[in-house]
Amino acid sequence: MVRFKVVLVEPKYQGNIGSVARVMKNFGFNDLILVNPPRIEGEARAMSMHALDVLENATVVENLRDVDRYCDFKVSTSAITAGDSNALRSPVFPEELAKALDSDGNIGIVFGREDYGLYNEEVLECDMQVTIPANQEYPTLNLAQSVAVILYELSRSEHRKRAGKRKFRELDGERKRVLYEMVDGMVDEVFDDDWTRELNKKSMKQVFGRAFVSGREAQTLIGLFRNAGEKLSGKTSTRKKSEE
Amino acid sequence: MVRFKVVLVEPKYQGNIGSVARVMKNFGFNDLILVNPPRIEGEARAMSMHALDVLENATVVENLRDVDRYCDFKVSTSAITAGDSNALRSPVFPEELAKALDSDGNIGIVFGREDYGLYNEEVLECDMQVTIPANQEYPTLNLAQSVAVILYELSRSEHRKRAGKRKFRELDGERKRVLYEMVDGMVDEVFDDDWTRELNKKSMKQVFGRAFVSGREAQTLIGLFRNAGEKLSGKTSTRKKSEE
Repeated sequence: MVRFKVVLVEPKYQGNIGSVARVMKNFGFNDLILVNPPRIEGEARAMSMHALDVLENATVVENLRDVDRYCDFKVSTSAITAGDSNALRSPVFPEELAKALDSDGNIGIVFGREDYGLYNEEVLECDMQVTIPANQEYPTLNLAQSVAVILYELSRSEHRKRAGKRKFRELDGERKRVLYEMVDGMVDEVFDDDWTRELNKKSMKQVFGRAFVSGREAQTLIGLFRNAGEKLSGKTSTRKKSEE
Repeated sequence: MVRFKVVLVEPKYQGNIGSVARVMKNFGFNDLILVNPPRIEGEARAMSMHALDVLENATVVENLRDVDRYCDFKVSTSAITAGDSNALRSPVFPEELAKALDSDGNIGIVFGREDYGLYNEEVLECDMQVTIPANQEYPTLNLAQSVAVILYELSRSEHRKRAGKRKFRELDGERKRVLYEMVDGMVDEVFDDDWTRELNKKSMKQVFGRAFVSGREAQTLIGLFRNAGEKLSGKTSTRKKSEE
């Protein structure tokens, strides 16, 4: 079964942290991870209302990388939309996130700072980007409202899906890492310049991230890219030999 | 065309009123009606952020009946669910509210007090009841979160109706065909036996299908697999030559 965790990166306001805990409990989510938060004080507690337990059981970590200890998969959230100039971001809408309900493991949904959101490198560290479609004139939702919308969507979709669909086998963090390593290895064999390599690696990562690759599929893909990479590097050495 | 208005009945907290204004603007709604509100002061303004105009243009009325001057139809919102003993309430889920998008006129979505919600007579005065499905253990959402969820649902449904599909992820059939052709070509170079080839082709196709690959991403991936395939076949021919 999949388990969602809410990750807040460097939240600033006590009130927001408390409100997030409350809305989590409203929708039946319990796991809160706080990345480098302020000390939790009175207002956070007050705003959490009957979800003080969510707040008090929150896991605190130093930075986003540490979240990998608790999550196999990270989804970033943003107000960045299709009009954005950053071609590397290709977000999906919250309802598509519901596909993850068919998968297994721990999925962290990552929300950025109230003022700056997530930095580019943090977004790229995530496996998938989701964006809430909003008014282009003023697309920046308050932190707790963003959490409310995403969790509502997940719980809504779960209600609908309970009928049951095909279960994916789990893709754990380790196998995901190997898959990406094999992809990177092949890309390095195919292209020479760094920019093209980066673009291709990121595109592959994004596409695989959005697809919620299953454990079995990952196994197949690892085999494919490992073999392709090895044959390609073999080719290089063959060619080198013949050039000598 | 239908026009939605947000109606807050006797809201108590400045912060909530401001947060509601903000999330309204986030989702492109402008008409706020306040029933017997407190005097709008600093915190409401601060929390409204860039939606001060929504707050300042709000209509103020004495009681819920007065709202009829501005709305043809009123929808009450509540945390009351099917399990509730009050048989007169028979709420629908937010997504069903989206059906109203096909109608005409002004629809007021009515949110109750932070502590007591809407009184029974107020609910009965409304034409329809909607409820947000939530955790039975703690179903009472914060006021601004409830507004966020309802407006998100309305704007989500409108997006779908308007656009059909999102342009930026569009992958036309032709490009998809080329992408799969390149994948197949590469797989054929990597593996020799038919069974493995089929398994790998199918897995890649499945994963890419689920990922809703965008046109731009497809372009990148086509380049990657074309190049990989060509280099791999180059290797084969090189080897063959050296074997001759």
